[in-house]
Amino acid sequence: MKRSAILRVQCPDSKGLDAALAEFIYRASGNILHFEQHMVQELGLYLARIEWDLDGFQIEMRDFARHFAPIADRLNMKWQIALSSDRLRVAVFVSKYDHCLVDLLYRWHTGELACEIPLIISNHPDAKRHADFYGVPFHVIEVTRENKSDAERRQRELLKQHRVDLIVLARYMQILSPEFIADHPQRIINIHHSFLPAFVGAKPHHQAFERGVKLLGATAHYVTEVLDDGPIIEQDVMRISHRDSLQDLVQKGRDLEKIVLSRAVGWHLEHRVLLYANKTVVFD
Amino acid sequence: MKRSAILRVQCPDSKGLDAALAEFIYRASGNILHFEQHMVQELGLYLARIEWDLDGFQIEMRDFARHFAPIADRLNMKWQIALSSDRLRVAVFVSKYDHCLVDLLYRWHTGELACEIPLIISNHPDAKRHADFYGVPFHVIEVTRENKSDAERRQRELLKQHRVDLIVLARYMQILSPEFIADHPQRIINIHHSFLPAFVGAKPHHQAFERGVKLLGATAHYVTEVLDDGPIIEQDVMRISHRDSLQDLVQKGRDLEKIVLSRAVGWHLEHRVLLYANKTVVFD
Amino acid sequence: MKRSAILRVQCPDSKGLDAALAEFIYRASGNILHFEQHMVQELGLYLARIEWDLDGFQIEMRDFARHFAPIADRLNMKWQIALSSDRLRVAVFVSKYDHCLVDLLYRWHTGELACEIPLIISNHPDAKRHADFYGVPFHVIEVTRENKSDAERRQRELLKQHRVDLIVLARYMQILSPEFIADHPQRIINIHHSFLPAFVGAKPHHQAFERGVKLLGATAHYVTEVLDDGPIIEQDVMRISHRDSLQDLVQKGRDLEKIVLSRAVGWHLEHRVLLYANKTVVFD
Amino acid sequence: MKRSAILRVQCPDSKGLDAALAEFIYRASGNILHFEQHMVQELGLYLARIEWDLDGFQIEMRDFARHFAPIADRLNMKWQIALSSDRLRVAVFVSKYDHCLVDLLYRWHTGELACEIPLIISNHPDAKRHADFYGVPFHVIEVTRENKSDAERRQRELLKQHRVDLIVLARYMQILSPEFIADHPQRIINIHHSFLPAFVGAKPHHQAFERGVKLLGATAHYVTEVLDDGPIIEQDVMRISHRDSLQDLVQKGRDLEKIVLSRAVGWHLEHRVLLYANKTVVFD
Repeated sequence: MKRSAILRVQCPDSKGLDAALAEFIYRASGNILHFEQHMVQELGLYLARIEWDLDGFQIEMRDFARHFAPIADRLNMKWQIALSSDRLRVAVFVSKYDHCLVDLLYRWHTGELACEIPLIISNHPDAKRHADFYGVPFHVIEVTRENKSDAERRQRELLKQHRVDLIVLARYMQILSPEFIADHPQRIINIHHSFLPAFVGAKPHHQAFERGVKLLGATAHYVTEVLDDGPIIEQDVMRISHRDSLQDLVQKGRDLEKIVLSRAVGWHLEHRVLLYANKTVVFD
Repeated sequence: MKRSAILRVQCPDSKGLDAALAEFIYRASGNILHFEQHMVQELGLYLARIEWDLDGFQIEMRDFARHFAPIADRLNMKWQIALSSDRLRVAVFVSKYDHCLVDLLYRWHTGELACEIPLIISNHPDAKRHADFYGVPFHVIEVTRENKSDAERRQRELLKQHRVDLIVLARYMQILSPEFIADHPQRIINIHHSFLPAFVGAKPHHQAFERGVKLLGATAHYVTEVLDDGPIIEQDVMRISHRDSLQDLVQKGRDLEKIVLSRAVGWHLEHRVLLYANKTVVFD
Repeated sequence: MKRSAILRVQCPDSKGLDAALAEFIYRASGNILHFEQHMVQELGLYLARIEWDLDGFQIEMRDFARHFAPIADRLNMKWQIALSSDRLRVAVFVSKYDHCLVDLLYRWHTGELACEIPLIISNHPDAKRHADFYGVPFHVIEVTRENKSDAERRQRELLKQHRVDLIVLARYMQILSPEFIADHPQRIINIHHSFLPAFVGAKPHHQAFERGVKLLGATAHYVTEVLDDGPIIEQDVMRISHRDSLQDLVQKGRDLEKIVLSRAVGWHLEHRVLLYANKTVVFD
Repeated sequence: MKRSAILRVQCPDSKGLDAALAEFIYRASGNILHFEQHMVQELGLYLARIEWDLDGFQIEMRDFARHFAPIADRLNMKWQIALSSDRLRVAVFVSKYDHCLVDLLYRWHTGELACEIPLIISNHPDAKRHADFYGVPFHVIEVTRENKSDAERRQRELLKQHRVDLIVLARYMQILSPEFIADHPQRIINIHHSFLPAFVGAKPHHQAFERGVKLLGATAHYVTEVLDDGPIIEQDVMRISHRDSLQDLVQKGRDLEKIVLSRAVGWHLEHRVLLYANKTVVFD
């Protein structure tokens, strides 16, 4: 695995943006591994992701901001820098359905998901044995109507203590408070078991069964204050038929949810996702 | 192609339904080609489709009802009989977007869609040259806010005169009146260019583009009085990305719409579709 | 879960087969839950699967053969009977890649795969911790060029001792001897990591990468004496691109392999698979 | 539609390639619309496609080579330049199956395929009426075992006379001679009705039916001297089942072939395809 740096930028479109970015890397002797850019025509918005090999790169990464800021300021860029060697710290939230959790843990264990998982938080003790198997601390924080704000306070303490970068709601069945969400912008990924915006809210499988759709869906998205309305990172569907009972939808849905959520988390970890308006650009 | 008969039934579930149906065909020396049945557990409802070879079948089809009625009455069955040799008469309604019309005409021409197409009705003259090419009469009936009921009266006269069995709305951009719909129950198929129930109503591609979905959809459904809410016959999706402009969605959507609509029409023509609640069962 | 019986038959086509089967069940007061049949036109072959509720069924299942044999003999039927309450006993064979094993164990644990897994056999010790977690005995039988026949003898003793009904090769990297295969007809399911018949044999991901295909495949099939040539039970594909390295194919392939293998195993366990020529019919 | 230029390059990887290309465009006041690059790690090969707006670009395109050559030479680049306003001239070859031809003509007519189609060549007269409808000259050149080289000579005269850039074999059932192929490198696209490399050669649907595959495929590829072995541009599959007769495969395959071929042709026309080894990179 090469040690590389990943720069994501967005700014108003103008001539010379690609040249400015590529030149900057080249002058410091960086070898670009991936250069992807996209122009959002209707907004005149330029987005780019550049990944370069740090071998021979002549800027110390702790000084990167100082070197890059003049360019960024001149071109009015919002930007983020990351190192492939810095593994994000992920907290997984789960309730009783553990298929997404188990899947994430396995992918993490095999190295497919390059992150740290310092803790799992659940409102039920059921999934603890899986956490134990993979050696991840498991915190049970019961949530009731009455203790909700207290529960969130305890969750936030744990997140802070473990310096968590990303929260993954792996079929976590509690609704987070607007304050909690506002304090973690673009840092909470949820899996919703429908093809959003169809079947927003509770019991999407029941809704799908009632409506008689021919495809079952799943959607991974960033959580925003409007329920199931955040920027979509990934979606997928599978075919169902009249043969499938509601229970079959639940079972088939598990495979969809695992794959869709793990793709979204993986792309976030590799700094492939950019946001604008209420949408994502996922550079491959 | 074998000459065959197709019987569709639905009734409350009870023991002996398969036996009663299969016995009835066998006693009249029919050889069953396809026997498909389905039990809707939550409603205690039995549905079946039986197709048998008419070669050697000892009941004259004009006498079928008289022979079958006693069984149907005893088992409280709703039923429909059809002959593979009786080709349904289809009217295609179209506006300016002609891709679904052209696709249906080609499939009809190659024999893939076994039907008659005695006429095409449009509120615009644009698609006439395709109708002419395939030798199908093309009727332009302009529709405005003012003349809507008069236009529908003329449409209905044409449908009656041509003894039309099925109306296919192949991107017909006018909304039919509740009276028109009520008079053609389960006999109007529409193609909607989204994955219903997402993006109901006008401009679904715009809605999809705004929402930032990762898959583009299309849905063929029977038309009921509630807009875009009728029983779904077929749906499919294709992957899109941030690279796709709104215009790209329109273009990619055409392939989806053609395939989804033609499948739904084909299944209707082969008497494969049964309805209950607001859902379809499509026997394959 | 209803207690049900599943009868699978195949015989030369003739009139009255559906009636004979449905009547037989009905006369013994069985309520048919699923009746699926298929006629292989080019061979004049009739195949059927009937599942009925045993509640109220008036034939003791231990006497089933005696009651059904006269009908089967008259119609020249090959047939198999099974009870939904009789869970098949499955041995999983695995080498180092453990993703399919772990997936099967999880599905078994949640009840999605209704079977017993009395043992796992591996030529490497690596996967033992997963077996331990799920409480399944794990037998390491090393296989070398020299000890191969002895290793198979030990495997066969274990299979016999545990009364194994089905062997699942979950990325087991050893080739079984023709004798071993011949003694387990239609009782060994393998997962091959390509879209067969493309990329038969060793290193199919390497072959796919070299050939530059745009879709990655996986195939679950019954094992026969000709390598990768047995009847295909299930296949699926996923899109890849020039961005994907060989390592990416391996990683993406895991999701395909897990899903394809688990579907095939599930259908086998539910007695949905029938074989003729070198093909399968999978009744849904 | 913007007037734009498209530059494709490939060369050995080294530092500064993106910078060199982007700088070159920027210095001549070009605004880059798309910049895509890819590094083939195992070969140390750099590939890129750059598209820029010609509005305000200060190099006359007829002088482009002179300006770009020094850079290309220094970096050891193979390169091609194209203008979005220069529509490629496409000859479609067809035999009796006309679905791909009709589909291409419709897409061309709607502007989805931005090209000229100066002629269609067929060894049968059957498809002429479609050519006439779209106003494209249709040349019947019968091919027999005896007249094959003479037939190819006449084909080549027509291709030369019409200054054809791309030959599309739209289910053309004759095998081209090695000489013909060698004279049109990377300029002949064929549609093969299987998922290559499965079912090479004649009657792939028959082969697929015999083998009992669960997915039907289609592959568009550049033609090389080894049959069905050229670089794959696009592939897709659809699900089939035991219900599908050989005739059903043929019918379902038509939808696949149309879509796969039209995508491949569209990408070629938009200069999105680069070749290396025996593979394609398709920039989106």
